[in-house]
Amino acid sequence: MSTTNPAPFPGQRGTRRWLTPDEEAAWRAFRRMLVAVTERTTKDLSPANLSMPDYDVLSTLADRADHRWGLREMAEKMEWSRSRLSHQISRMQTRGLVDRLPDDTDRRGVVLQLTPAGLAALREATSTHLASVRRRFVDHLNPEELETIRDLADRIAEAPG
Amino acid sequence: MSTTNPAPFPGQRGTRRWLTPDEEAAWRAFRRMLVAVTERTTKDLSPANLSMPDYDVLSTLADRADHRWGLREMAEKMEWSRSRLSHQISRMQTRGLVDRLPDDTDRRGVVLQLTPAGLAALREATSTHLASVRRRFVDHLNPEELETIRDLADRIAEAPG
Repeated sequence: MSTTNPAPFPGQRGTRRWLTPDEEAAWRAFRRMLVAVTERTTKDLSPANLSMPDYDVLSTLADRADHRWGLREMAEKMEWSRSRLSHQISRMQTRGLVDRLPDDTDRRGVVLQLTPAGLAALREATSTHLASVRRRFVDHLNPEELETIRDLADRIAEAPG
Repeated sequence: MSTTNPAPFPGQRGTRRWLTPDEEAAWRAFRRMLVAVTERTTKDLSPANLSMPDYDVLSTLADRADHRWGLREMAEKMEWSRSRLSHQISRMQTRGLVDRLPDDTDRRGVVLQLTPAGLAALREATSTHLASVRRRFVDHLNPEELETIRDLADRIAEAPG
């Protein structure tokens, strides 16, 4: 593995810590994969009129027995900021997919509730989406590779910010 | 490895091809990594007033000896659609980072040219960005893991659409 890298433009060599060719190739491949998987799964889901964030919100609510979740706790669970979740919910509320209810146990709190229309939309989209996740991701990896990618992904995602 | 999966909501079991728990865990970890790396590298670059697409465009132009590229060829190289690149260029043009020139060899063609301001912006951002790529991605992987992730990423990205 070489430890030098041609400068991508003149005059920038020497003082910076360039990536090695192997590091750069891995980073480029990683970014290509990221864009490809995101675009393809998004496109596969679009006939169901749902975005990936829509799907994530619906499935997270549906995972609960009562189909509801406090906004604060749900944002934590999804690893989204509360304001991002709140904006996303506003858009989905106008489409009748979720409701926003007062929280009986916390005057300033908000409870999110999956509506029957939201559940129906999720049900219609689920098999499409799972087939898409298989086709775009899972089917390209054997069990050992799935475990490897899970371990590396966990390590990278859990690195201190 | 179990091959069944509890249905995420009632009434949805049996007819669908659910992901196994291992597959689902790998997919979730993958998506967390994807979001984490994207958010962190974007945040690290923001003091330079550049987005990741800005940086990608500037560095792709700077890779060429004459700092210019035909729009069509550059879109292919970046694996972007031509309309996406064209919109991105319009935004960067108003900031003086790139120019759009007529193509002498093709009346309907467009040539993109890095401006001195664009090169200066890239130079200022490069060491920040490379340090960010190291900190958020490369430093968490040993050489063997880098090679593994590169192979898997290539395979997934190059799968037929």
